[in-house]
Amino acid sequence: MSNFAWVTLATNDSYSLGALVVAHSLKRVHTAHQLAVLITPGVSEAMKNKLRTIFNVVEEVNLLDSKDEANLALLKRPELGITFTKLHCWRLTQFEKCVFLDADTLVLRNCDELFEREELSAAPDVGWPDCFNSGVYVYRPSLDTFSSLMQYAVTHGSFDGGDQGLLNSYFSDWAHKDISKHLPFIYNTSSVASYSYLPAFKQFGQNTKILHFIGTAKPWLQNFNSESRKVYIPGGYQHLANFLQYWWDIFCEDVHSRLSADMSDLNNSRNNNEKRNSSAPSVRYCEIPPPPKPTSQLTNQVPSYPT
Amino acid sequence: MSNFAWVTLATNDSYSLGALVVAHSLKRVHTAHQLAVLITPGVSEAMKNKLRTIFNVVEEVNLLDSKDEANLALLKRPELGITFTKLHCWRLTQFEKCVFLDADTLVLRNCDELFEREELSAAPDVGWPDCFNSGVYVYRPSLDTFSSLMQYAVTHGSFDGGDQGLLNSYFSDWAHKDISKHLPFIYNTSSVASYSYLPAFKQFGQNTKILHFIGTAKPWLQNFNSESRKVYIPGGYQHLANFLQYWWDIFCEDVHSRLSADMSDLNNSRNNNEKRNSSAPSVRYCEIPPPPKPTSQLTNQVPSYPT
Repeated sequence: MSNFAWVTLATNDSYSLGALVVAHSLKRVHTAHQLAVLITPGVSEAMKNKLRTIFNVVEEVNLLDSKDEANLALLKRPELGITFTKLHCWRLTQFEKCVFLDADTLVLRNCDELFEREELSAAPDVGWPDCFNSGVYVYRPSLDTFSSLMQYAVTHGSFDGGDQGLLNSYFSDWAHKDISKHLPFIYNTSSVASYSYLPAFKQFGQNTKILHFIGTAKPWLQNFNSESRKVYIPGGYQHLANFLQYWWDIFCEDVHSRLSADMSDLNNSRNNNEKRNSSAPSVRYCEIPPPPKPTSQLTNQVPSYPT
Repeated sequence: MSNFAWVTLATNDSYSLGALVVAHSLKRVHTAHQLAVLITPGVSEAMKNKLRTIFNVVEEVNLLDSKDEANLALLKRPELGITFTKLHCWRLTQFEKCVFLDADTLVLRNCDELFEREELSAAPDVGWPDCFNSGVYVYRPSLDTFSSLMQYAVTHGSFDGGDQGLLNSYFSDWAHKDISKHLPFIYNTSSVASYSYLPAFKQFGQNTKILHFIGTAKPWLQNFNSESRKVYIPGGYQHLANFLQYWWDIFCEDVHSRLSADMSDLNNSRNNNEKRNSSAPSVRYCEIPPPPKPTSQLTNQVPSYPT
């Protein structure tokens, strides 16, 4: 079995749906490597079981239970805890090398060649392109690196308050040292690139291997017609139509049909999670179809999603 | 005298004002190198004379007068003529190496070290960061390169209809071949970076060496109080306040006070030019103070700008 892994993170049941779609998108392109997901206590037991059906590793990270030196230091600044959850990916030392993918990404083509790159390889961020975007990056799990990152976090904080600012400060030579660590933008194509430089998106976007739904256009926040199985494309997002539809195709075919009945309150738990976590996107088009229920439970209040 | 030059382009009197500010911003930081400006027939005789007071070379480029092979080829597609005017910078073979600066840039610190870079060095574009932004680039004048670029243009066109698309296709290995050709973003800091990733702008923007006023926030389109000599900062642009004010400081102190009386219809010519050229920004805050007139000509219709 490969000792390389794709790693993602889910902090609640809603993002777990994204993680499941990411995992299935990797399976569809026949990746040769393992799948791992970091989860926090916000993920329900039922969802954990669902995640275990496709991820080789489901690793719960809980800062408060951890007693190592770096985490004890971090406990002095508990406000950093949620922000830096992603850093726990460096603790997956059962793997030799990993590629981290945010749960709002979507793999369109086989990208196993990414594992030929070295830590820290990433694509530029569209906001300040001498920073890399931390939605997709190649790294080597290492407890030393994890500890060093945590210590750096406690000492310096993060200029943007999140993991991207911290990782860019820590791997500060990314911009100007080694071109091989600059992943082509098609490995982390920002969905906003489509409207900030549309001609380039039309020219190069067809080669996209991993799309990153940054901003407000999250696929799970779009309206979806459960009869036609078509997603409604909001105005100005027509060039993302194929990507949004593909996300929903995977969700319908690979994820939703297999959700268990005991996750029937998923929409409710998602909303509750998002109220608790201010960093979650606001719910503007909350139309994720609920998981299937026994027919006897179906009411008019539940969209009649074909199972 | 240095055989390196800073090169800019002005297609009308309005952009000539930008070119003059660029030139004076370079003088203020004591560049050791020469200044050259390409102009098209849209620039008035009076403005040409003004340009000659600070630029070492004022080179008029007029496709219709040119008879060389590349230009004859281009004549078959005259619609490309305006778009590719910038390419004429490769014909300045009296210089060994040049840095091109768009007329909507502003040099904040001495950047003579840019001449240590090789063709084609440029900073990433915020829209699609595997493309470089063609507002600032290091190049080597060469008639062969000029001819090759023109031939490429005629054969392939430009994916964005402008020089940036063409140059990125021609220098297509920029993104992934040589990190030394990736100029740090502080040499071409896009003004829109300030709102697309404000934390990074706050962290790194203070190191900016060349600011590029892309988009609609052109300095010359902002309202200006001729009594206080302060520019009005539009909502959402407070973080650009110092840069906008500096542009106007240079304009007032170094440019405006030296404009001659025979350019008194500059605002009119500017508006006419912008109506003719659809690629020019729309005039939302058309408040460039007119050049000084003899006191006898001053009326209430003319803002009383101190000279």
